[in-house]
Amino acid sequence: MLKKDNILKIHKKLKGKLKIELNDSLETKKDLSIHYTPGIAKVSEHLYKNPNETKEYTWTSNNLAIISDGSAVLGLGNIGPYGALPVMEGKAMIFKRFADINAIPIVLDVHDQKGIIETIKAIAPSFGAINLEDIAAPICFEVEETLKKELDIPIMHDDQHGTAVVVLAGLINSMKLAGKDLNNCKVVMVGVGAAGTAIAKLIHLYAPKVNLILLDSKGIISKSRKDLNKFKKDLLKISNKENVSGDLQTAIAGSDVFLGVSKPNLLNDQMIKSMNQKPIIFAMANPDPEVYPKDAKKAGAYIVATGRSDFPNQINNALAFPGIFRGALDNKVQKITDNHKIAAAKVIAGLVKKPTVDKIIPDIFYPNLVSLVSKVIK
Amino acid sequence: MLKKDNILKIHKKLKGKLKIELNDSLETKKDLSIHYTPGIAKVSEHLYKNPNETKEYTWTSNNLAIISDGSAVLGLGNIGPYGALPVMEGKAMIFKRFADINAIPIVLDVHDQKGIIETIKAIAPSFGAINLEDIAAPICFEVEETLKKELDIPIMHDDQHGTAVVVLAGLINSMKLAGKDLNNCKVVMVGVGAAGTAIAKLIHLYAPKVNLILLDSKGIISKSRKDLNKFKKDLLKISNKENVSGDLQTAIAGSDVFLGVSKPNLLNDQMIKSMNQKPIIFAMANPDPEVYPKDAKKAGAYIVATGRSDFPNQINNALAFPGIFRGALDNKVQKITDNHKIAAAKVIAGLVKKPTVDKIIPDIFYPNLVSLVSKVIK
Repeated sequence: MLKKDNILKIHKKLKGKLKIELNDSLETKKDLSIHYTPGIAKVSEHLYKNPNETKEYTWTSNNLAIISDGSAVLGLGNIGPYGALPVMEGKAMIFKRFADINAIPIVLDVHDQKGIIETIKAIAPSFGAINLEDIAAPICFEVEETLKKELDIPIMHDDQHGTAVVVLAGLINSMKLAGKDLNNCKVVMVGVGAAGTAIAKLIHLYAPKVNLILLDSKGIISKSRKDLNKFKKDLLKISNKENVSGDLQTAIAGSDVFLGVSKPNLLNDQMIKSMNQKPIIFAMANPDPEVYPKDAKKAGAYIVATGRSDFPNQINNALAFPGIFRGALDNKVQKITDNHKIAAAKVIAGLVKKPTVDKIIPDIFYPNLVSLVSKVIK
Repeated sequence: MLKKDNILKIHKKLKGKLKIELNDSLETKKDLSIHYTPGIAKVSEHLYKNPNETKEYTWTSNNLAIISDGSAVLGLGNIGPYGALPVMEGKAMIFKRFADINAIPIVLDVHDQKGIIETIKAIAPSFGAINLEDIAAPICFEVEETLKKELDIPIMHDDQHGTAVVVLAGLINSMKLAGKDLNNCKVVMVGVGAAGTAIAKLIHLYAPKVNLILLDSKGIISKSRKDLNKFKKDLLKISNKENVSGDLQTAIAGSDVFLGVSKPNLLNDQMIKSMNQKPIIFAMANPDPEVYPKDAKKAGAYIVATGRSDFPNQINNALAFPGIFRGALDNKVQKITDNHKIAAAKVIAGLVKKPTVDKIIPDIFYPNLVSLVSKVIK
């Protein structure tokens, strides 16, 4: 990995990863009179009378905002808007490079649910879509839900749904390799924040008979627990039908799949050995996974995926979000739905023609990845 | 002037005047690990601990937001955020073309003073500066004042101060030509909205002995009026010392300068003939001025300026705002002050080496205009 000093030096020299460029020239008084006063008044008047045509005449046809309050940034946690900004700029680079979308980083110095919602609603007419990013659970759930209800542009919290789509894509190919059906599997997941919650819901939607066991830092989410917030309680509708209680060691015995979106070094040899045959392990804590691939394999894991680019099988949101938003903008989709997410997961999984245990998921540089995903968002 | 259909056609074809481009390549896994995860975490951590260094590591070094609620757009009035967006995109083009600043149009679907202020404060960490635009008086005054107090980035409401700077520049050269001193002049202005208020204040600051008479739609602003809001009352401190009452015909008699930021066809022959010798007329209502240059000249006007590019002497904010913000960003200025504005006006006036009655102000394409203005914003 690159050293801290080098990374800082590169960024200090660059002074920002993004710039604005113009789609037309501004070299004569005539150019000015078309793109600014007095000519522009004609366009303004037209959009005042026909606001629903705004995307046809402005850059909202192909732009979006990447919006974060900096409350859950990477593995760093609540580092605020200034800490979040470099990540949003990096994500804007990915949007441009892979999907040719003009993405604007917007970091918020407001952190309560109502404030975040009000701010985003207020600036929404400036954008063609909204990618919510790195907003902590549980606030992120109601922020996204409210905005989806109240705005008519596509909105997606990528930490939730981008991750869920790519996890599902990886599971689809893992099932093929292991010769299993997700509907007959026991899937144990640790971590029920933004990503974990969305993963659980999408897996259940894809395979309604899956036996899901979810855990937070206090153990298995079960009816017996008295400390669950409404979002965790909600997860009982799709998990733990047999009302099992206990810790990870209890949960993981006999399971087919372990999903980790929690913290480093959670999974030991004994736990892996207690899993069903051909254990599938997605250890996605960043940057240090719940178990390192080498150790997991030694303990008998069949397939191991992580969030890192330096190991095989990187579960990387960037496989999903560029294509999903490209499709939403191209196909004038107002809501990104569960069906869109499942369709995207299937497309991503299908790109690996011959999956192997070290290649269950395509690379971000896979040709046509974005355009193929975009086609199913319609 | 271009026809409405053509203007709309050009914009429909363009689908937005702006795009995002990248300052570095994103072609390898290594590039991704520098600009996104995991490398970017180093920059995020650094800015979390040193938020005051954000401009050194992100595009806030050279970006700004152009923010409007669409409540006072061009001559069109309150046409809302969608109507405002094309104007903001045009302005962003000017920022890029003339000052190499990355300007982001932000249009607001919130229109009360508190809502506008709260929204802008919430998104402020995303930007290096803020250009407020086309926000109606009197809300614009407290919006700007509050934000200047509570944020530590340069903020300017261009409708107020950009206009005031260019009007002052034009007046400086007009005085030279007419052989007059603004401190001995009677200046009559119709219109005390955003632009008028700022023009009055800047002129008074530049020439404290000027005899200013200000009018709104109900006549001369005087102590005798009972219908004045606090902003208009405030203008009595710098105008109408002799407490004159009445209409424009009364006000303009014997005046040296007429400034119009109001509505078309306000000024007739008789009024111009009643002015002092060498009448100076800035008829800036857009697109139709208070009097057309040809008619004003026929009635005896010495100098006529308008807001239009198709007549001589265009009073055009674009002469001021690119250089003012270029300077504020380059010189790390936190507040744009009255001294900055007067200095900018002097620079702009000085660019016309030999002023004539048809050339009191430089062209927007004047070489080095932006860099020369930027140097005095320090």
